[in-house]
Amino acid sequence: MLMRTAAQSLTEQLADRFATRIRDRLLTPGARLPSVRQCAGQHAVSPSTVVAAYDQLLAQGLIEARPQRGFFVRDWVPKSQNPSVERSQNAIENEVAGRMVAGVSSASPVNATALIRGMFHPGGPNPQPGTGVLPAQWMVTNFMTAAVRKVTSPAALQASSLTYGEPLGDSDLRRVLSARLMSLGVPAAPSQIMTTVGATHALDIVSRTLLKAGDCVMVEEPGWAVEFARLNALGMRILPVPRGPAGPDIEVMARYCEVHAPKLFVSVSVLHNPTGHSLTPGHAHRVLQLAQTHDFHVVEDDTYSHIAPEHATRMSVLDGLQRTIYVSGFAKILAPNWRIGYLAAPPDLVERLLDTKLLATLTTPSLLEKALAYCIEQGQLRRHAERIRSRLDGARARSVKLALQAGCTFAAEPAGLFGWVDTGVDTDQLAQRMLDAGYLLAPGALFHATRAPSTRMRINFATTQEAAFWAVLARQIEAMQR
Amino acid sequence: MLMRTAAQSLTEQLADRFATRIRDRLLTPGARLPSVRQCAGQHAVSPSTVVAAYDQLLAQGLIEARPQRGFFVRDWVPKSQNPSVERSQNAIENEVAGRMVAGVSSASPVNATALIRGMFHPGGPNPQPGTGVLPAQWMVTNFMTAAVRKVTSPAALQASSLTYGEPLGDSDLRRVLSARLMSLGVPAAPSQIMTTVGATHALDIVSRTLLKAGDCVMVEEPGWAVEFARLNALGMRILPVPRGPAGPDIEVMARYCEVHAPKLFVSVSVLHNPTGHSLTPGHAHRVLQLAQTHDFHVVEDDTYSHIAPEHATRMSVLDGLQRTIYVSGFAKILAPNWRIGYLAAPPDLVERLLDTKLLATLTTPSLLEKALAYCIEQGQLRRHAERIRSRLDGARARSVKLALQAGCTFAAEPAGLFGWVDTGVDTDQLAQRMLDAGYLLAPGALFHATRAPSTRMRINFATTQEAAFWAVLARQIEAMQR
Repeated sequence: MLMRTAAQSLTEQLADRFATRIRDRLLTPGARLPSVRQCAGQHAVSPSTVVAAYDQLLAQGLIEARPQRGFFVRDWVPKSQNPSVERSQNAIENEVAGRMVAGVSSASPVNATALIRGMFHPGGPNPQPGTGVLPAQWMVTNFMTAAVRKVTSPAALQASSLTYGEPLGDSDLRRVLSARLMSLGVPAAPSQIMTTVGATHALDIVSRTLLKAGDCVMVEEPGWAVEFARLNALGMRILPVPRGPAGPDIEVMARYCEVHAPKLFVSVSVLHNPTGHSLTPGHAHRVLQLAQTHDFHVVEDDTYSHIAPEHATRMSVLDGLQRTIYVSGFAKILAPNWRIGYLAAPPDLVERLLDTKLLATLTTPSLLEKALAYCIEQGQLRRHAERIRSRLDGARARSVKLALQAGCTFAAEPAGLFGWVDTGVDTDQLAQRMLDAGYLLAPGALFHATRAPSTRMRINFATTQEAAFWAVLARQIEAMQR
Repeated sequence: MLMRTAAQSLTEQLADRFATRIRDRLLTPGARLPSVRQCAGQHAVSPSTVVAAYDQLLAQGLIEARPQRGFFVRDWVPKSQNPSVERSQNAIENEVAGRMVAGVSSASPVNATALIRGMFHPGGPNPQPGTGVLPAQWMVTNFMTAAVRKVTSPAALQASSLTYGEPLGDSDLRRVLSARLMSLGVPAAPSQIMTTVGATHALDIVSRTLLKAGDCVMVEEPGWAVEFARLNALGMRILPVPRGPAGPDIEVMARYCEVHAPKLFVSVSVLHNPTGHSLTPGHAHRVLQLAQTHDFHVVEDDTYSHIAPEHATRMSVLDGLQRTIYVSGFAKILAPNWRIGYLAAPPDLVERLLDTKLLATLTTPSLLEKALAYCIEQGQLRRHAERIRSRLDGARARSVKLALQAGCTFAAEPAGLFGWVDTGVDTDQLAQRMLDAGYLLAPGALFHATRAPSTRMRINFATTQEAAFWAVLARQIEAMQR
C-alpha cells in the first residue's frame, strides 16, 4: 500500500517501485505493465498519479510506450549483444512446430535469475514461497561447527590452503561419497567422483564437456528454469520432454531421437522439481534403452537425494554408471553457501570432465570439502536428514491443507520439498500482485522452456505453513477472477 | 634410471613408465615416442627390451605403430566426441595463412592440463621448475589462521553457511577489494566487483558472457596455455598477437580488427606470463584506442598483481573501467586452494556477468571470502606480499646466474615470478628427458596457440635455485646436441 509521505510523493513511490522491480529483474524486458486504470485500482491512487509515474519511467529509459498496446519494460541489453535472445526468436519462429526450443524467451515477468536472486535474499519479514531451499533455521546444527574446527587447526589449514589440492576434489570426501553412493546402489569408486562448486557447477561441467553449441539436449518440462537458462546461454538447443508421474514421456523422447539426435538427457529422477514426482523402474529402464539405442548420455540430477524416500529408483543404479552421470550436492540439507556438489561418471568420461573443471575453475576449496567429509562420516548428516524429512512431512501436511482451503488444487501428488499448485489464474500476474504484498512466488511459466503462461506455481512446503500467506493469496486470486 | 628388481622386469618398468605418462597426459595423443635405438640409449637397456615394452603398450591400446614413421600415442577420446580437435584441424588448414587459430593442436608432448595437474601435485623430492605457483612454504603465515578463526565462531559460521550469500560475493570482501583497486588507480565501486572461484573462473565468466561459439578473440603469444585451451573448448576462434617488451603488437591487432572483428582481447599487462614483460603507457593507450575504434572489450588479467612493481601501467586505470574488465586473485600470494578471484567490470556489464556466474556456480563460499577480507583489511597481506617480493628478488638473482652458467640465455629481461629461457634445443624433447630425471618443465610450445616447437621454456624463479637441477638440465641439453 502506498502512503503519502513528506519525503516522497505517491508518483515517486510508484515509479520507484517499478524501477526497482525492473532493475531486480522481477519485471523483465518485454513484460507489459498494468494499464493505467488497473494500476490505479491496484494501488488505490488516481489515474493521473499512474500517468505521472509512467512518465518518469519513460524518461529514465526503463519502459517504452507501444501505440495501442500499452507500456512495456525496455531491453536493458542491446539486442546485438544478446545472442541468446536473437537465437531464441529465430528458433521459435522456425522450429516451434517441432517443439524444439533453442532459446528461452525473456518475456516472462519473473525470470530465472531473479528467482535465484530471491533465493539468496530471503530478506523481509515473510517466509518466501518461491524459494528452492530450506529456511536457514531448519539447517542449524552443532556438528557443522565441530567439523570446521577440526579442519582449521594451523597445520590442517595450511595443508588445505597452500597448494591447489587434488584436481578431482578432496580424497577424504570422495571416499565417503563413494560409500554413500554404494549404499544407494550406485557403483562409483572414488576415482569416478569429482567435486564441484555445488550441483549447478556439476551440471555446467557435464554440458560443457559433452555438448557443443548447437547440439540438442532433452530436458524435462516442467523443469528447472536455471537449467534451461544455462543450456540456452551455452547455445544448446533445448528439447522439452513432458514429465509425468511415472517419468518422462518415452514416446516424445523416441521421436526426438529419430529427428534431432540429441546428445544428452537431463533428468531429476527423484522428487522432480517442480512436481515432486519420482521415476518408476519401468520408465527408468525404457529411458536407458533409448539412450543405448540412440547413443546419448543421461545426467541424473539427484539434488533432493537427502530428503528422498527410501528405495527411490535411480537410473544410475540400473545403468551402473555406464551412460549415466550422477549429480548431487548439499545445498538442500546442510550448507548452501559451502557450494559443495559432485558428480559420479563412467570411467571413460572422468578425464574429460576433469579437464573442463580445471579449465573453468581449477580446483575447489578442500577446507570445506574436508569438513563435509567429517559430517558425513560421523553419521551426523544422515541423522540430521532424518530430522529434516520428518519436519518437512509435518510442514507439507499443514501447507497442503491451507492451499486447499485457499481454493488451490495440486497438479501433482504432494511429495518432497515442492508443491505444484494450480491457482486457476495466470501466475505471472499473480506473482506481480504478490510481490506488492511482500511475497516472491515461482510462477509456472518459469518451469516451461517456452515460458508459456500458466495457472500453476511451485511452492516450497517449508515456507508456506502460515495462514497469513494463503489468505493474501486467496484475496489476490479472487480479485483477478472478478 | 631403470633397475632390475625381483618384482618387475625392465620391460615392465619401461612400459609402465610410458603408460603412466600417457595416462597423466605428460605424453599426449599424437606425440611420437623415441625410436627404439634412442630409447634404448636413454634408459641404458637393450633394444629388445624397448621392443618388448612398446609391444605391451600396443597391446594395451595406448600407442600405435605408423609404418615408416614410428610409434605414436593413440587418441584416448574418439575423434567424433572431440569437436575442438576436429575444429582445430579444419581451422589450421583453412586459415593458417591468416594466422588465426581456432583450435589448439594436441600434438605437444606436455599439454596444458598436464601442466596444471603438475602444479597441483608438487610431490616428489624436487622443486618443480614448470609450476606456476610459489612453493607452499613461502606462503606460510600466522595471520591466515587467525583470520579463519574469526569467521568460524558458531554464529559467524552459520551466517556464512546456511544461506546462499550475496550473488556478487561477500560485501566485506568487495569493500576491501574496492579500496585496493582505488589505490591502484582502478575506479571500481563495490557494486562493480564480483568474486569468483579463482581468477580462472573470472576469465571463464567473461568469455562466456561476452562471446559466443565462433567469435574471434585476441590473445597474447606467447601466452598462458590454459587460457588458449579454455577459449578453444568454448568454441572461440583464437587470434594470437605477438607480445613484446612494450606490449602487444599493435599493427597485428589493427589488422585482426579490420579482417576478423574480434570481440575481446585478453591480456596480462603486468608481469606477463611467460615473459615477465610489463606494458608501457604508450602501448596501453594504443590498445584502448583500437578497442574504442573497433568496439571490442579488453580483459586485463592482473594475476601477478601482488608481486608487481610499484607504478606498473594498467589499462583499467587509463580506461577507468569503461571497456576493460579487471581480473585478479590470490592464488599466487596467499592461499591457492581458497580459490578466490574477482573481477571489476564496467557498470553496464555487471548484471550480465553476474547472470553467468549464477548459472555456472550460483554463489561462492563467503566463509573464505570473509577470512580473506580480514587478511587484507588488517594490512597483513600487504606486508606478506612485500616479504615475498624481496625473497623472490633474491631467488631470481640466484636462478638467473645458474641458468647462464648452464648455457641458457634469457629471451626476456628477468622479472617477477617467471623466466623465459632459451635452451638452444627443442624443449618438448627436453621436457620428456627431464621427466625421467624427476623434473616437470613448461616447454615453450605450451605458450603458443599453434603449439609450434620451441627452444624456449618457462621457469619459476622460486623453484630453480638449486644447482642440481641446472646440472641435470645442462647434461640433457648437451646429450641432445651431440
